Amino acid sequence: MTDPSRPSEPGRHRPGPVRPTASSALRLRPAVEARITGGFWAGRRAVNREVCVPGGWDRLQEAGNLHDVELAAGRAAGDPAGDLPFLDSDLYKWLEAVGWTLGDPDLATAAAGQLLARLAESTELLAAAQEPDGYLDSHFQVRHPGERFAQLPWGHELYCAGHLVQAAVAVHRSTGEDGLLQVARRVADLVVATFGTGPGQVDGVCGHPEIETALVELYRETGEQAYLDRARGFVDRRGHGLLGDDRFGRQYWQDHLPVREAATVEGHAVRQLYLLAGVADVHAETGDPSLLAACERLWADMVATRTYLTGGIGAHHRDEAFGDPYELPDERAYCETCAAIASVQLSWRLLMATGEARYADLLERTLYNGFLAGLSLDGERYSYVNPLQVRDGHVAGGGDGDPGRVPWFRCACCPPNVMRLLASLEHYVLLGGEDTVALHQYVSGEYTAEVAGGRARLVVATDYPWDGAVRVQVLDAPAGPWTLALRVPLWAGEGVALTVDGEAAAGGPAAGWWRVARVWQGGEQLLLTLPLEPRLTAADPRVDADRGCLALERGPLVYCVESADHPGHRLDDVLLDADRPLRAEARHGDLGDVVVVLATGSSRPRPETTWWPYGSPAPTAATMGTGATRGVSEAGEAVRLTAVPYFAWGNRAPGAMRVWLPVR
Amino acid sequence: MTDPSRPSEPGRHRPGPVRPTASSALRLRPAVEARITGGFWAGRRAVNREVCVPGGWDRLQEAGNLHDVELAAGRAAGDPAGDLPFLDSDLYKWLEAVGWTLGDPDLATAAAGQLLARLAESTELLAAAQEPDGYLDSHFQVRHPGERFAQLPWGHELYCAGHLVQAAVAVHRSTGEDGLLQVARRVADLVVATFGTGPGQVDGVCGHPEIETALVELYRETGEQAYLDRARGFVDRRGHGLLGDDRFGRQYWQDHLPVREAATVEGHAVRQLYLLAGVADVHAETGDPSLLAACERLWADMVATRTYLTGGIGAHHRDEAFGDPYELPDERAYCETCAAIASVQLSWRLLMATGEARYADLLERTLYNGFLAGLSLDGERYSYVNPLQVRDGHVAGGGDGDPGRVPWFRCACCPPNVMRLLASLEHYVLLGGEDTVALHQYVSGEYTAEVAGGRARLVVATDYPWDGAVRVQVLDAPAGPWTLALRVPLWAGEGVALTVDGEAAAGGPAAGWWRVARVWQGGEQLLLTLPLEPRLTAADPRVDADRGCLALERGPLVYCVESADHPGHRLDDVLLDADRPLRAEARHGDLGDVVVVLATGSSRPRPETTWWPYGSPAPTAATMGTGATRGVSEAGEAVRLTAVPYFAWGNRAPGAMRVWLPVR
Repeated sequence: MTDPSRPSEPGRHRPGPVRPTASSALRLRPAVEARITGGFWAGRRAVNREVCVPGGWDRLQEAGNLHDVELAAGRAAGDPAGDLPFLDSDLYKWLEAVGWTLGDPDLATAAAGQLLARLAESTELLAAAQEPDGYLDSHFQVRHPGERFAQLPWGHELYCAGHLVQAAVAVHRSTGEDGLLQVARRVADLVVATFGTGPGQVDGVCGHPEIETALVELYRETGEQAYLDRARGFVDRRGHGLLGDDRFGRQYWQDHLPVREAATVEGHAVRQLYLLAGVADVHAETGDPSLLAACERLWADMVATRTYLTGGIGAHHRDEAFGDPYELPDERAYCETCAAIASVQLSWRLLMATGEARYADLLERTLYNGFLAGLSLDGERYSYVNPLQVRDGHVAGGGDGDPGRVPWFRCACCPPNVMRLLASLEHYVLLGGEDTVALHQYVSGEYTAEVAGGRARLVVATDYPWDGAVRVQVLDAPAGPWTLALRVPLWAGEGVALTVDGEAAAGGPAAGWWRVARVWQGGEQLLLTLPLEPRLTAADPRVDADRGCLALERGPLVYCVESADHPGHRLDDVLLDADRPLRAEARHGDLGDVVVVLATGSSRPRPETTWWPYGSPAPTAATMGTGATRGVSEAGEAVRLTAVPYFAWGNRAPGAMRVWLPVR
Repeated sequence: MTDPSRPSEPGRHRPGPVRPTASSALRLRPAVEARITGGFWAGRRAVNREVCVPGGWDRLQEAGNLHDVELAAGRAAGDPAGDLPFLDSDLYKWLEAVGWTLGDPDLATAAAGQLLARLAESTELLAAAQEPDGYLDSHFQVRHPGERFAQLPWGHELYCAGHLVQAAVAVHRSTGEDGLLQVARRVADLVVATFGTGPGQVDGVCGHPEIETALVELYRETGEQAYLDRARGFVDRRGHGLLGDDRFGRQYWQDHLPVREAATVEGHAVRQLYLLAGVADVHAETGDPSLLAACERLWADMVATRTYLTGGIGAHHRDEAFGDPYELPDERAYCETCAAIASVQLSWRLLMATGEARYADLLERTLYNGFLAGLSLDGERYSYVNPLQVRDGHVAGGGDGDPGRVPWFRCACCPPNVMRLLASLEHYVLLGGEDTVALHQYVSGEYTAEVAGGRARLVVATDYPWDGAVRVQVLDAPAGPWTLALRVPLWAGEGVALTVDGEAAAGGPAAGWWRVARVWQGGEQLLLTLPLEPRLTAADPRVDADRGCLALERGPLVYCVESADHPGHRLDDVLLDADRPLRAEARHGDLGDVVVVLATGSSRPRPETTWWPYGSPAPTAATMGTGATRGVSEAGEAVRLTAVPYFAWGNRAPGAMRVWLPVR
């Protein structure tokens, strides 16, 4: 493979998502080189590269996404395949994943050739479908010609445009090819010309945020100030009721309050978080402190009151929305995979803006749990919703909202979203700032970040999250002092150790980082040891769904119990014995190589069957006459509990699953 | 008022819903005369008669329901007002309420005249809109001409036809007027001719059951066997996938299994229960034991595993559906008011079919709690959903799915459904069978039931549910022995007393009835005393949402605590002290005359604020380093808890509400 557009040389500058300008207000900036070379995520990325991304093209063909663009280009006949207005975005997200994948040095030559061909085919088709003034949206071109930008609440035109821009940026950054970028710029130029508060312009915002973050990226990629200004304009105009009222209320699309005034996350979770990612990007390039404050405030509200243990977001099925504070039902958790991805995007941006470790903590938790559960181990199936509990006797209702993974969805937003994040994951590991290089995720690979005086290059080797030893070698170091900051996760507590060239490092963790400041020579070997004893976790008592329950965790992984490991028991009848020790055990089997957590519990006898499941809490049935007696459990039969990583649930025969276990 | 069509004489035969034929398989049959004369329900019925029903006409006009029928009749121009396919049914349910209300002896003369005028106006309009072959459905006539009966899954044509039939039957039974009945019969005749498995017929069922029970009632009213046969045909053909697959799965409309084979209630709750009411009616008139067995089996599954303490039904917002067994979230309970009404209809039918007291128990619980909460105290506002918990900080999202009552809904199925049940409530009190007269609800009034040898007439006087004394006088009694059965609710336990003419009655409660068998002379005075001590109730341990919580109940009433009675406290922070005594206290105030339950609790200090709401369950924060410590509560500030009847919640300033209280 000698394609000059494909950067296989490790030294080549190959930026990922978020490429801040020199004047950006970020305290930490993405690594300038990054390559994952092994370990946990290399395996997941191989599945993405070899199964998900190639399969995505087939699914898009089968679902008719390409057909509808062909209709818009006048190259096909017949009815449009889809009725959802945002189907173009599935293609765009897949193209973004293709862009990042083409920057993956581990991509096989033949596979790269196939992806480049499909990229070229798609680019040519999109260019053909694009109207002379730049408009491009197959749904409106085919189904609603003449209604462009007239259905902003539900039309998703700017949302789709944003995903096109992101795809074009990814392709351009990875390959240098600018064909798709030209298409995207023409769309963006039309958006800039159309929207605004000037005479003849449309003073409106899109029902689904996304264009904001995309336009900032396009500004970064092109230097065109108008894109940044337009992104800021959309942020400023949102929250004034421009979208009108709808059945879910103005909160649904965050149009109830300007973001600078909002105190709480509200409404559709993905909309809220995509908006905030855009707000963070506008802050990054404008330095407007009120925007950063808004992001920090809303992130904190979200995490403290409306985030599941898995990092999953969104309690409501009906409107895919945040619930009330502490409304976090486990069995009816929505936790859309896209919302987890959006949460990762936001946390990463806030980490770069502030340097605060908690953002990296949530990013890690979400990556390993709420996000990763969205993809089956074999890469063939995806989940839309990610509950923390599936009951014995669950009857699948069908449709996108049912737990369990399927090859594709009618509303297929999640699968290509999974692909684009996995394909760009190497950029979410190391950051560089004025005097600090921050290693915030522990992923085997080679990473280079800019720091005052030059570039620091690190090699990370670890079997994390299965093993707690993280080896870091400083390969190249600029002259002069700088600080290497290693994140100490909140869950790690106090059992963390760090050596530099075999000697205990001075100081210790503070505010989530272990900072080692010195003049680095290059060649230093660091060993960070994180304690991976399995642990029990309780929820805030206001989380009603988890009252009387504990969860099992180990390192960044949330665990769950599944029916598959407990034949003969109903999980609804199992109690955890919290006083008995937990034990971690490596297992090679039907879930591949994982570490399971063993615990002790009991399977309580099912209560006497009565017709009415409520009754006196008194311990003797006699007090209730014919009534039921409830709330008292017998010790029951002892049962050895085997907990598996949450991300691996649902890969065997359908059955029950629980993250939160009632305690005996 | 001398309108001969209005039966104000108490002696007049005036049947209500369900008028079984002489050959019906029912063990108990509705009272032949019934009049509520005072007490709790008389007050609710006065509000219904004086506020709800008259206001319903105005709301239907405002919402455009009448306009759309006028369009179908060619009497209006312009666009149809509504886009939902079942808007005609709102009018029909209101007309049914008008029918029963016209049979209410307490209806004022002027009000009766107004209702009769509107009934006549509506009847004339509907007859004008009806097509020559009998077809009548304004949605399809106006919006989809030529597509009649072609959209059975979502078209709701047979559903609307069923409600028209029920309205016509109600009007006919109460007034003798048959104008609306003629319209309904022509619709029913078209349905009979159109549907079936014969040549040229449509082998289909409606996506929303309702026609089944209606056709049985029409058979009862007219003697036309074809209506019963068609009802049975719809029951038999459902469950074979005729409706196809849709996004919610075949369970959604109970088309996944024939009802005789279904073991569990599934899908859309109102659809499931309307279907079963129809199945019970077909059983009643055909005697098919497999249909009764199906109803009993599914009712038992529903009650044991998927019914809230309030009798509310339906755990899911997205598809208004039953959840999995024991999936009963309190804050996100759907508990549609219509589902409670449907549950009352089913339980009543099974009570008549079997004589088993548990059906009357659930009927009572649902009436006083899950149903009655659907109407504000002043009768001006309705709720669609009836959660058992509203959190501090709840942000109303707007729309029909938000807790809290509003004057009307875009999908206004519930308000006229409330009206028709309240307007016919007198019929849900007394039943008569071969040798038994069963008083299953305790409502002040005069009731006559048929029993072997003649008619038994009772007068009931009680301040139930506030007071536990129920006085029953036997006014007229047929010669020969018969049994007066008084229901002893499950909640009453063993503290029940009964005297006849001042002397303790022999025997005692058995299987939910206290049966007094004798030759009654007429004039006997019975006093049933039910124990109304407030009590604590626990849930089946598999109901995760209620783990570690207790509820307060008194008699048939479920209680709740509201912010309005606990200024300065967040309900999310309150714990109940289950060891302290409960006390009932009469209160005249902002909720009218109610009995409140006083309890003792504590308001625990809010846990230390950390950014992450999960952490070690250990009691000392030191073990977690910078992490949070959760799951341990301090005793907190003592707080006197005032619980109010659940049906009265949400009648004051918006705030938090809880039925299930965490226990200290």
